[in-house]
Amino acid sequence: MPSFYDDNDDLRWYVDHGIDWEPIVRLTEYDWKAPDGFRSVDEARDFYREVMGLLGTVCAEQIAPRWKELDHSHPHVVDGQVVESAAVTEIFSQLAELGIHGMCLPRELGGMNAPLLVLQLNTEMLARADVSVCAHAGFHGGMALAALMYSVLEGTTTFQQDPPSITATRFRECIDEICSGAAWGSMDITEPDAGSDMAALKTRGVLGADGQWRVTGQKIFITSGHGRWHFVIARTEETDARAGGAAPSGADAFAGLKGLSMFLVPAWDYDEAGNKVMRASFVGVEEKLGHNASATVTISFEDSPAHLIGQRGEGFKYMLLLMNNARVAVGFESLGVAEAAWRAAKQYAAVRPSMGKTIDQHEMIADILDEMQTHIQGIRALGIQAAWHEELNQKLRLALAHFDLPAERRAQLEREQKRHARKSRHLTPLLKWISSEQAVHIARQSVQVHGGSGYIKETGVEKLLRDAMVFPIYEGTSQIQALMVMKDNLLDAVRNPKGFVRRTAQARWRSVSAKDGLEKRVAHLRLESQQAIQFLVSRLAATKLRELRHHRPGDWTELMKDWDPKKDFALAMLHAERLTSMLADAAVAEILWEQGQKDGARRELLVRWLERAEPRSRHMHDLITTTGPRLLSVLAGDTSSHAAAK
Amino acid sequence: MPSFYDDNDDLRWYVDHGIDWEPIVRLTEYDWKAPDGFRSVDEARDFYREVMGLLGTVCAEQIAPRWKELDHSHPHVVDGQVVESAAVTEIFSQLAELGIHGMCLPRELGGMNAPLLVLQLNTEMLARADVSVCAHAGFHGGMALAALMYSVLEGTTTFQQDPPSITATRFRECIDEICSGAAWGSMDITEPDAGSDMAALKTRGVLGADGQWRVTGQKIFITSGHGRWHFVIARTEETDARAGGAAPSGADAFAGLKGLSMFLVPAWDYDEAGNKVMRASFVGVEEKLGHNASATVTISFEDSPAHLIGQRGEGFKYMLLLMNNARVAVGFESLGVAEAAWRAAKQYAAVRPSMGKTIDQHEMIADILDEMQTHIQGIRALGIQAAWHEELNQKLRLALAHFDLPAERRAQLEREQKRHARKSRHLTPLLKWISSEQAVHIARQSVQVHGGSGYIKETGVEKLLRDAMVFPIYEGTSQIQALMVMKDNLLDAVRNPKGFVRRTAQARWRSVSAKDGLEKRVAHLRLESQQAIQFLVSRLAATKLRELRHHRPGDWTELMKDWDPKKDFALAMLHAERLTSMLADAAVAEILWEQGQKDGARRELLVRWLERAEPRSRHMHDLITTTGPRLLSVLAGDTSSHAAAK
Repeated sequence: MPSFYDDNDDLRWYVDHGIDWEPIVRLTEYDWKAPDGFRSVDEARDFYREVMGLLGTVCAEQIAPRWKELDHSHPHVVDGQVVESAAVTEIFSQLAELGIHGMCLPRELGGMNAPLLVLQLNTEMLARADVSVCAHAGFHGGMALAALMYSVLEGTTTFQQDPPSITATRFRECIDEICSGAAWGSMDITEPDAGSDMAALKTRGVLGADGQWRVTGQKIFITSGHGRWHFVIARTEETDARAGGAAPSGADAFAGLKGLSMFLVPAWDYDEAGNKVMRASFVGVEEKLGHNASATVTISFEDSPAHLIGQRGEGFKYMLLLMNNARVAVGFESLGVAEAAWRAAKQYAAVRPSMGKTIDQHEMIADILDEMQTHIQGIRALGIQAAWHEELNQKLRLALAHFDLPAERRAQLEREQKRHARKSRHLTPLLKWISSEQAVHIARQSVQVHGGSGYIKETGVEKLLRDAMVFPIYEGTSQIQALMVMKDNLLDAVRNPKGFVRRTAQARWRSVSAKDGLEKRVAHLRLESQQAIQFLVSRLAATKLRELRHHRPGDWTELMKDWDPKKDFALAMLHAERLTSMLADAAVAEILWEQGQKDGARRELLVRWLERAEPRSRHMHDLITTTGPRLLSVLAGDTSSHAAAK
Repeated sequence: MPSFYDDNDDLRWYVDHGIDWEPIVRLTEYDWKAPDGFRSVDEARDFYREVMGLLGTVCAEQIAPRWKELDHSHPHVVDGQVVESAAVTEIFSQLAELGIHGMCLPRELGGMNAPLLVLQLNTEMLARADVSVCAHAGFHGGMALAALMYSVLEGTTTFQQDPPSITATRFRECIDEICSGAAWGSMDITEPDAGSDMAALKTRGVLGADGQWRVTGQKIFITSGHGRWHFVIARTEETDARAGGAAPSGADAFAGLKGLSMFLVPAWDYDEAGNKVMRASFVGVEEKLGHNASATVTISFEDSPAHLIGQRGEGFKYMLLLMNNARVAVGFESLGVAEAAWRAAKQYAAVRPSMGKTIDQHEMIADILDEMQTHIQGIRALGIQAAWHEELNQKLRLALAHFDLPAERRAQLEREQKRHARKSRHLTPLLKWISSEQAVHIARQSVQVHGGSGYIKETGVEKLLRDAMVFPIYEGTSQIQALMVMKDNLLDAVRNPKGFVRRTAQARWRSVSAKDGLEKRVAHLRLESQQAIQFLVSRLAATKLRELRHHRPGDWTELMKDWDPKKDFALAMLHAERLTSMLADAAVAEILWEQGQKDGARRELLVRWLERAEPRSRHMHDLITTTGPRLLSVLAGDTSSHAAAK
């Protein structure tokens, strides 16, 4: 029986050996006290394996073979409702029967209480089968979890200590509907004039004299935005210049974030007779390059009754809470599409003859296939690591909200939570960037390996490229990920120069003195990325640099306080994607090194990774240190740079 | 009035200043003796400018705005004929009215007698408007020229010396039909089991007792293969092991080329009443990722009456004659799509606000746009240079066939023709490789710059990516181009080591001692590519190297005679695309340097090119010299390479 779980050795290695399940299962099972819960990691893992095996079979047998139907599915608006294709309806009724939408919900809310990490691994398999199905499935379980998490954090979920369980939660109706497969949710952020720039959002939330919040505005590009439950970001406060209509300027570009609030808005309610009463209108569904079975909706709210989540002005904070999770999910979506593209290329190359041998024996094709596989395995390692930290971050945060804890234990868990949050914050944009960029590259290369056949619709690989092309765009573009990475890493170096110098020295030492040749090479990759950061910090805007020259490095932190990274880091902003590439390469190498410490068989993958990553990292370092000033002077309006050519 | 000629400063610079028209116009105008011909370069250039201005307007006003219709055009088979959309029919009747299909045909055959270079420049504008229209247009004029050229070279075109003109030509019916717009041709090579590997072709040509050749077999992926006139490659000789049914082996992979012949096969004839009598059948039209208005046809020949071109067994030779031209044309198609993608991105970025400024002012986006523009201009320089040499090669070849010449003059023209042939052979695969790879990359980046809007069909940029994706596949994949480049360059070094050493020394000297800093850098790029070649030659299969160690370098050539580059150059084959990238970067730099010598304003472009090319070239050199052996030992079945990881 074909299965996307059984046929994937690398994926199974993680479930069986690679993932440290203990801390996650312990938290998920309320410190082993959950009623009807698992009593050991092994017991839990057996269950996760069973879930994944089952879904792996559904993916391989029920979803993947329907790719053509799904690719021809174009949801569209009929009489104010978005109509989906038969294939989507059938597949989702099947997924609902499997109970997949409640996979990560607590048992007391009707779920399976599986870790989020299991959901992410399933995301890979679903995306390998069809990414539209995967994305839409994500807006079921993921949004039910969002409703629960938001409620816990705003303090509207009640919890009993013994046995530990949730007794009531604010958005139970939403959660129950989604869990049963009857509804789903979406995250409504983007507007016609505001994509990455959330400060420019215009949708308004207004509190009526009757105490009812109402939301008005239009949201576009909303994935699965044709469902009932909408998390909507809207402006409630006039705190900034731009909202007041003044001309926007670089200086206050982020001020507008403070005026945003988060709402849960049902697109419809039901009257007493059970008939739908629309509270928002579906304006249209986009015709897209790919993701055809996934609806990308324009929705219009007009005084739509809304439930404020948390406090006014906390909208951006609530959005950030789920952001890492969503970005990790894109990592696994990207992985699934890349895996499908690699397998298709490998399979085709193994049977296609040319010049007396199959083309997988031709050096250039073999090189392409080898690089695809290496990237996929590296991204999987990074993805699982990021998901692991993010889950522990969130679970600890929830545990801290749920449990009565002795002060010392609470302080310890808070430290752990912060550590995982920091790790997740570091790894997530690296994952989102490298996985989405590589999904596009790998899908493109798969078409190329297929030659003329790859360009034909019938073959199915061109669909993978079309599907992959949105990954570097949605949930924050590659450029936005890179800006986050750059900002975090440079500010960290500036704010804590001692720590930065220490980490650099450690990497240098390990790169020279480690006994194991592979460890040296891993350390050298890290060293190179540290050197790139150092170079960028040292090239900060010339005026700032002059100021700094008269201060000791210890004073940097103080001096930098007034700096605006959006303005002062021009060279670093130019090179942000290159720095991100270096940091992603180093992060993956370190994770694979750790794996190799536990399981010698993983060293072969590390060798492949290093062989690809080392010249790439050198190249990025080269670009960062030798290019950029010309373009920056053009942007600064200085035309004298052309004088060099005279 | 919008015009794709008037709005393109870089393109117009070539027509006005950059192209050395003199030798081309002189040959095209039969040494200024053509009846009704131009009498000066200026007169001719005014005419070419007029033609391009006219077509530029048609492209901008009549074709580009219909992109959506054209993208929805899916030609399909109805009653044995391929039916096209109204948009295609209308546009082609307009193009026929303009007389565009006879643009490069001699006046005495009803053409405009414009140089091929003008056709290539028009190709860029047409491709910028819609690449399907461009491709289909190419199979009109291009195939009429092919029919004329084949006839001249096989000796079936007669020519009078004074005034010089063609008096009769074998395929006049074909040429006249195409010239009038009533028909078009195609080049039918690919078969289900033979793409790049032409030795595996199975279609047969059989000479009947009646003296009539007949062709039987199926051809697939035939662009514009729904027309009347088909140049068909078919097997006529059983000269090789594979044709005899023996198992294929690496050693004789190319032997099968000797048994191929070239035919002109009409897909239909007309009976006396003027009704079509089908001689071949259109089996189907592919559904593709892009190029939707261009028909990609499967055609089946069954004892179809055929006209043998040249001698039996010369099929591969005749195919090669047009190959460079076709590949240069793909270079200009790629350029057109890249130009459209860059302009769309630039235009969008100039108006899209984010964080208080338009996104073209954001460093990363500015960098993407700058790199796009630089690549496009570099590719245009390379394309025009390749086209110029190829046209002089072909025109000289025809002149040598046409004209009665004194022996000395003949010898001189033959030398010139060979020099241009060599240059064209060197530049064409570099152009095909870099232009097609960059068209894909630039179109992809254009989607990225557009963000979510780029993923929506309505915006139109995703079409450019879909259209571009075929460039690295058709007319010889990127990998095939790279193999040609690698083979030519390595064999050249091996066969003429002294020349190789001299060129390396020259580049080294110039890179150190040139007065002009830019010249130094240009020379250094060349030096680096020479060093990569030297590295690859020195790493030839270890056994061969041992043999060579006991011989002086002067003996290399003799020793290498028995070598099979397909087998012995494994490392070079692995790195062929990387070497190609280096050689393309160096070639463009040299062309731009020459331009800068004549027009100082071009130096600014050279500066941009070098800034991008230098780190890229260093990176390729790094990859070539530090990676590969692991994968090669895996391919050789040696698993001990994994031991390094233990």
